[in-house]
Amino acid sequence: MSAPLSLSDNPHEECGVFGIFSPGREVARLTFFGLYALQHRGQESAGIATCDGHSAHLHKEMGLVTHIFTEESLHPLKGHLAIGHTRYSTTGKSHPRNAQPYLIETIDGPLGVAHNGNLTNALSLRKQLLGRGVGLSSTTDSEVITQLLAAPTFSPAHADPRSPDRWVSRLSTFMVQAEGAYSLVVLTRDAVYAVRDPLGLRPLCLGKLPDGGHVVASESCALGTVGADFLRDVQPGEIVRLNANGVASFTGNPSRKRALCIFEYVYFARPDSVLEGQLIHTVRQKMGRQLAREAPADADIVVGVPDSATPAAIGFAQEAGLPFTEGLTKNRYIGRTFIQPDDALRQTGVQLKYNPLTDNLRGKRVVLVDDSIVRGTTAGPLVKLLRAGGAAEVHVRVSSPPVRHPCFMGVDMSTRTQLIAHRLDVDGIRAHIHADSLAYLSMAGLLAAVRDARRTTGGYCAACFSGEYPIAIPDWMFDENHEKLLFEDMWG
Amino acid sequence: MSAPLSLSDNPHEECGVFGIFSPGREVARLTFFGLYALQHRGQESAGIATCDGHSAHLHKEMGLVTHIFTEESLHPLKGHLAIGHTRYSTTGKSHPRNAQPYLIETIDGPLGVAHNGNLTNALSLRKQLLGRGVGLSSTTDSEVITQLLAAPTFSPAHADPRSPDRWVSRLSTFMVQAEGAYSLVVLTRDAVYAVRDPLGLRPLCLGKLPDGGHVVASESCALGTVGADFLRDVQPGEIVRLNANGVASFTGNPSRKRALCIFEYVYFARPDSVLEGQLIHTVRQKMGRQLAREAPADADIVVGVPDSATPAAIGFAQEAGLPFTEGLTKNRYIGRTFIQPDDALRQTGVQLKYNPLTDNLRGKRVVLVDDSIVRGTTAGPLVKLLRAGGAAEVHVRVSSPPVRHPCFMGVDMSTRTQLIAHRLDVDGIRAHIHADSLAYLSMAGLLAAVRDARRTTGGYCAACFSGEYPIAIPDWMFDENHEKLLFEDMWG
Amino acid sequence: MSAPLSLSDNPHEECGVFGIFSPGREVARLTFFGLYALQHRGQESAGIATCDGHSAHLHKEMGLVTHIFTEESLHPLKGHLAIGHTRYSTTGKSHPRNAQPYLIETIDGPLGVAHNGNLTNALSLRKQLLGRGVGLSSTTDSEVITQLLAAPTFSPAHADPRSPDRWVSRLSTFMVQAEGAYSLVVLTRDAVYAVRDPLGLRPLCLGKLPDGGHVVASESCALGTVGADFLRDVQPGEIVRLNANGVASFTGNPSRKRALCIFEYVYFARPDSVLEGQLIHTVRQKMGRQLAREAPADADIVVGVPDSATPAAIGFAQEAGLPFTEGLTKNRYIGRTFIQPDDALRQTGVQLKYNPLTDNLRGKRVVLVDDSIVRGTTAGPLVKLLRAGGAAEVHVRVSSPPVRHPCFMGVDMSTRTQLIAHRLDVDGIRAHIHADSLAYLSMAGLLAAVRDARRTTGGYCAACFSGEYPIAIPDWMFDENHEKLLFEDMWG
Amino acid sequence: MSAPLSLSDNPHEECGVFGIFSPGREVARLTFFGLYALQHRGQESAGIATCDGHSAHLHKEMGLVTHIFTEESLHPLKGHLAIGHTRYSTTGKSHPRNAQPYLIETIDGPLGVAHNGNLTNALSLRKQLLGRGVGLSSTTDSEVITQLLAAPTFSPAHADPRSPDRWVSRLSTFMVQAEGAYSLVVLTRDAVYAVRDPLGLRPLCLGKLPDGGHVVASESCALGTVGADFLRDVQPGEIVRLNANGVASFTGNPSRKRALCIFEYVYFARPDSVLEGQLIHTVRQKMGRQLAREAPADADIVVGVPDSATPAAIGFAQEAGLPFTEGLTKNRYIGRTFIQPDDALRQTGVQLKYNPLTDNLRGKRVVLVDDSIVRGTTAGPLVKLLRAGGAAEVHVRVSSPPVRHPCFMGVDMSTRTQLIAHRLDVDGIRAHIHADSLAYLSMAGLLAAVRDARRTTGGYCAACFSGEYPIAIPDWMFDENHEKLLFEDMWG
Repeated sequence: MSAPLSLSDNPHEECGVFGIFSPGREVARLTFFGLYALQHRGQESAGIATCDGHSAHLHKEMGLVTHIFTEESLHPLKGHLAIGHTRYSTTGKSHPRNAQPYLIETIDGPLGVAHNGNLTNALSLRKQLLGRGVGLSSTTDSEVITQLLAAPTFSPAHADPRSPDRWVSRLSTFMVQAEGAYSLVVLTRDAVYAVRDPLGLRPLCLGKLPDGGHVVASESCALGTVGADFLRDVQPGEIVRLNANGVASFTGNPSRKRALCIFEYVYFARPDSVLEGQLIHTVRQKMGRQLAREAPADADIVVGVPDSATPAAIGFAQEAGLPFTEGLTKNRYIGRTFIQPDDALRQTGVQLKYNPLTDNLRGKRVVLVDDSIVRGTTAGPLVKLLRAGGAAEVHVRVSSPPVRHPCFMGVDMSTRTQLIAHRLDVDGIRAHIHADSLAYLSMAGLLAAVRDARRTTGGYCAACFSGEYPIAIPDWMFDENHEKLLFEDMWG
Repeated sequence: MSAPLSLSDNPHEECGVFGIFSPGREVARLTFFGLYALQHRGQESAGIATCDGHSAHLHKEMGLVTHIFTEESLHPLKGHLAIGHTRYSTTGKSHPRNAQPYLIETIDGPLGVAHNGNLTNALSLRKQLLGRGVGLSSTTDSEVITQLLAAPTFSPAHADPRSPDRWVSRLSTFMVQAEGAYSLVVLTRDAVYAVRDPLGLRPLCLGKLPDGGHVVASESCALGTVGADFLRDVQPGEIVRLNANGVASFTGNPSRKRALCIFEYVYFARPDSVLEGQLIHTVRQKMGRQLAREAPADADIVVGVPDSATPAAIGFAQEAGLPFTEGLTKNRYIGRTFIQPDDALRQTGVQLKYNPLTDNLRGKRVVLVDDSIVRGTTAGPLVKLLRAGGAAEVHVRVSSPPVRHPCFMGVDMSTRTQLIAHRLDVDGIRAHIHADSLAYLSMAGLLAAVRDARRTTGGYCAACFSGEYPIAIPDWMFDENHEKLLFEDMWG
Repeated sequence: MSAPLSLSDNPHEECGVFGIFSPGREVARLTFFGLYALQHRGQESAGIATCDGHSAHLHKEMGLVTHIFTEESLHPLKGHLAIGHTRYSTTGKSHPRNAQPYLIETIDGPLGVAHNGNLTNALSLRKQLLGRGVGLSSTTDSEVITQLLAAPTFSPAHADPRSPDRWVSRLSTFMVQAEGAYSLVVLTRDAVYAVRDPLGLRPLCLGKLPDGGHVVASESCALGTVGADFLRDVQPGEIVRLNANGVASFTGNPSRKRALCIFEYVYFARPDSVLEGQLIHTVRQKMGRQLAREAPADADIVVGVPDSATPAAIGFAQEAGLPFTEGLTKNRYIGRTFIQPDDALRQTGVQLKYNPLTDNLRGKRVVLVDDSIVRGTTAGPLVKLLRAGGAAEVHVRVSSPPVRHPCFMGVDMSTRTQLIAHRLDVDGIRAHIHADSLAYLSMAGLLAAVRDARRTTGGYCAACFSGEYPIAIPDWMFDENHEKLLFEDMWG
Repeated sequence: MSAPLSLSDNPHEECGVFGIFSPGREVARLTFFGLYALQHRGQESAGIATCDGHSAHLHKEMGLVTHIFTEESLHPLKGHLAIGHTRYSTTGKSHPRNAQPYLIETIDGPLGVAHNGNLTNALSLRKQLLGRGVGLSSTTDSEVITQLLAAPTFSPAHADPRSPDRWVSRLSTFMVQAEGAYSLVVLTRDAVYAVRDPLGLRPLCLGKLPDGGHVVASESCALGTVGADFLRDVQPGEIVRLNANGVASFTGNPSRKRALCIFEYVYFARPDSVLEGQLIHTVRQKMGRQLAREAPADADIVVGVPDSATPAAIGFAQEAGLPFTEGLTKNRYIGRTFIQPDDALRQTGVQLKYNPLTDNLRGKRVVLVDDSIVRGTTAGPLVKLLRAGGAAEVHVRVSSPPVRHPCFMGVDMSTRTQLIAHRLDVDGIRAHIHADSLAYLSMAGLLAAVRDARRTTGGYCAACFSGEYPIAIPDWMFDENHEKLLFEDMWG
């Protein structure tokens, strides 16, 4: 029995963003609760920038939302406009100076930016900025975005220098230049803007507050938390402006095809969020059902890896006509610890995160449903735990296809050699994790589950499964060390 | 839709204890991992005391185990004997000076004490100590126990002043004086002692390390975490000594009847722990099955309050032949926050801890299984959430009887007027929480589930349900303010 | 007897800077000790930026040098080049984001800047940057300087794009644009630059390390602390480059007249520093002697306000032929405290910083020497203390002229109405502080003391005494709220 | 030139105590200011215990008074009685659990104790407590005192169990048992007691608040700080009670001879404190005068080691008819730093605490006055610094006799082999510190200076100079490791 301390094989989502405009109300507190609901999208740092129509205010720090914000740190964040960010680093090292939002002074007043995604042409945009003499204080593409937006654009269409359209103009200009994934919330003196890249790679949605004002957020779960009603997803290529005149929509860069990250359905989004009109929990149950049809198992019970695979396991059990039960408990107090097991403890096999529920398992042929296998570090120990807990057989079923390709759109899954399915075929993985059988959901099956309700509106980015990227990825980005190569010259 | 910030209606367990003797090994790290597995029994403070056969060392602090212990704070805790404690306050205010273990110097060397439980005659023992001129620096009964054990006993039976039996003698003397609940681990220069009160009110078990040495812990889940094999429960009235000679058992104060806290089965213990030979998860499933037999519901689906009621909900669904599914998600990042919703947010009804899974609920008649209703503050908001999520009917089923009486044995459930079932009958509670129907598991049903396997060895304390206390409780202790009255004279 | 908690009437120096290039050596530690010696020039924040010829590293924080730097925070600061800064805010609010040095990435690699002084045309330079689309994240003129230096200059004289002279070119360009006071240390990938404004308003000197390498610092006391030998002052208008080729000197912007801040002699510089070839302690003694000649007093003893006025008091006593003694003790543990006296305590007159030495004072006619009177808040309470301690008469002598005009060159003395000598004449001040007599050193006397050794090389800025500023100050800067007006639009 | 980082050769005073009773007033704030004035007597930890006539409250921590106490930590310290303590450890390791005051509950209500001094029979008192079954949680003699006072005494003379004399009785009983140095302040529910050992080894004085109430403090400087008027010293062997009836005096244990620590005059006490009716600054000037008579030097100037030797240097200069001046500056920001010089820096000779004032020294024959030489680690580097600064000759004069014997009365000067005068004669020390000449004040001269005013009332403990201890010291206490031997059994 062996399971290392922070046993996890899930990729890291990079960020959650939140924006709000609510006239006559102090909105920093609402922003806090919005970020609280988006905490699962990033636990490394968080921040809030506000504006009272005049002055702007910022507080950001390393840590969880609940640790960073106290009544004392919330107090100075005055104003009826705000943006917020919670972050797990993808580009840019884990460092306080990389925390978001960025807030700067520009010729047109305050500019705050919070970003979810990853620009694939960040390097050339960065060089463009450095070339015109802008110094950069971090390695993030988010600072690049912020400084790009700081520069006025002099399009004749927006001649009035005091018009808020100045910002729409800047955002449109940016959207023409930028490639890759970006869901942005932008704070200016008078408005909050929400921007989604033309492919719609990362989610972003819009809601309405009952007492006036609007909210944008990465996921709909944050709308419910602050008491807002869901209106609609922000459309790929769209700029939405929230200001004293209500909501306005602009076309920033027209969307030609859609490519929402399908991993949002597989793992990232919270089960109670609604994406493209579908409840995530429901889609995951459908994945489980489809998986049961594609890869049935001769077994006695179905258990899921808690908590993320539970919906798929429930779906699998229902379709297979097998009892769903719990086979593993999860320590709810697992958090960052600096204490590592010593060698003797490692050999004995310390189980810190998961423990087997022996009575449920004893003598049983068990289907273990997981949502994905990325590096393959968790499945083996879990199979071992189930056997140690008495399972007679363990059949692993994965509710998504094998992850074989890195992601460059803002998910921490970027080096091919770490992906077990890049190195081994399915039977090789089965042998590696010592399962009696192993099957993955097919690509077609995944798409069928996601599109089942026929309410979905378009294509998906499933490049991590298929290798078909929605935009061209230069060869050098597949190099394991490309980030190191990019930045070590300066930032060590 | 309304659900306050830290929506919880579970009583607080007071403490977890851990002890270890492993010759030739540094055991502080193992103790850390043991406490880590017992974190659910107390999140207020934690501590470890060790001894290397010569000097003793202590580190204790407010906070979670993972926050308190770093490599730096673990480093000075030298030795092959250790005890550990994790605490939620029952007696004694929440204050650093009340953190455990206590470690003092005595005429016979170091003495460390960690305590789970509550002495019902703590006040008279306290006065006895004060009367013989011992000053006390805290309000805990645990300090009283420690100072009582500091005094030598001069029984002729233990004439050799260097014998470790001196401590057995002191512990026996203490066990004759003490009334109430106590599972103790005690550290001396050469041995660790595990002591359980004659009624066996709180659990305590014994395990064996594969490479030599033994472990005692409040729950068996901590044994597995440190790689130890479960041997047996420490018996009511027993003193177990772990030292260089291995394990020895002494009768401290013979047990006349047994009264294990039945709430350990209902809620406290971790589902993967084994108590009296039974897996907790299994017993909870049986409670759910029994509940389905006693109080069936004409419904479409069964959901549990995550995570504690999931096993009972699974059992209920199986017995009722209804599909089990998830109806509520729980925010996994809920932690202590200092930020409170403002009034507007409260009115809107912010949902921070739980959110409804709408597709699963829409138009369904829902059975909501909960493990217990104590103050009744959670059930109402949850019923409202389910309806807001689309449920057509909500039938609440509780896998334990109504909690009508306070606990004086170490559980934070001590004022009668806070207990909703003390004030209202079942239909009154149903109306209060706006459920379509409400039923509790019967006392007989609960006992049947707990004793189902016929492996259980005796009686239980179910005083919180029945009002029949296993020991006499003086009238004044039922006074709401009795703790305040006791200590405010001095400690304010 | 009354003396408020942090009784101080000294103006605040704004900053100390330090730079070092020492091939083959880790220099962060030396930089720490250099800042340690410059701590008197700024206690609000401090920071160090280093470069190893490749990567750059930064650590800066609010607080004292000794609190900010630990072995842990020093460890990542690799490299043989470094700059350091210790700060008291003049422009820019007291805020972590205003701490220095600034470190950014530019098209030519890392650029670090630490600044002592104040630009009088910062606002127009700021607008110039914003106008070309550079966003600014703080309100300091130091960030403005940093971003100005980030832009390449394409002068044909420096055609080779890899030449370090690119930086000399940028620095020269900056020096032509900038007005006001600046002593800069600048870090690039390969070199440290030291820059002093053409007026030489703030000090800056150069030293040599015995084992190779050079050091620049605000004051010579920092050279001694790191074991370097004093070479010379950096000249007004000069750029000094420290790199692998040793020391090189460039003319950045030729100096037409000199205007070293004379308050460095009066109060700012440490008594053991050497400025313009003169020991500060010696110059202050001369001020005391001159003061005794100009304004003798019929008295029994001479005491100074500890510690800064002691040298002048010694000089006064020697010239006057009166005994020097201590009349006041100073609490050495005075630091920041958040506890304020209550009203009763205020009425009683709590003395926290100074206490009278009664036996020395009893029945004596006392000369009390102070170095300057700025707001006039200290002198009154001290006179009262001396009388309460038994002094028969108190004759105040100030070793500098009345401060009547604000400073815009980097000293926190910027609002006219706060200056007591702006509102009252000498006799009015005498009455205000209840002294038996009061006299100031004359302007001519001050200059005589400073120039006594005939080694000094030029003019001084004595604008705070005379109102004759060495550069034109726009009228609006005399407005009390000018800083607030400048920045509140954005930074609130 | 070499001077280590925290160059200091002064012995550490152990503690300062403060007590206050002021009806109708919140006194925690006053106690804070009292401790602030006593900070020089201990910088390791501090604490305040208060009582409102009913409940008692405590806050104590490691660190400086100004760091420990904030409005937030002061707020809960309610009441009109308080005691406070500031500590440098003598017995008992530096550890949070050893911070004072101690506050415990006793049969007669709260008991708080703060202690300055050291019991020479602490070990036997400790064993007596352990023998009667009292466990001890620290290694300090102060906890021993507290627990001794917790035990009721049943003397028939004090039959009324509610009489405050119960405490006088306990204190008297303690004073008969205890040997060594103790100035105590004791807090009970209704009164503050001040107790001084029969030899009067450590100072303690009494003052009166103008608006009612009284204060006791280690030194009179704390009286002035809180606005109290000095009344008198607490007498050796006396118990002073402050309560609602005002001040009462009791004889605890009659004084047979007096033995005030003469080092209070030499170094410990603040120069503005009055002890035995004499201003400390004045006595130190007399020591300097006497030294000039005993050991004149053919020299040009007199300088003192700042700041403690300045009064003696002034006295020496006056008597010798030589000019007093400053020869060394002291860095005022010297504090605890964790950064150590590297080897290269050590070789260069970094000067962190002191720097020479070259112009004052160049070519001069210098008398350097110091107050004492204990280990001899400072004098050598200072002589070297003066020569490096240009001094032609350096004649060291010490205003106290050679320290040859350890102290057991509460001063950290306890191992004979560390005392340079224990190993070397005067000429040996002179050679060791490379002085041109060295002379100490004679024992007779020191006593003459201290008694000069003929107001002093008795004998002194000068055991560190003479070896004549006022009470018998057991041989084993001279063992270098005696403290380690005592406590390592238990506390490691």
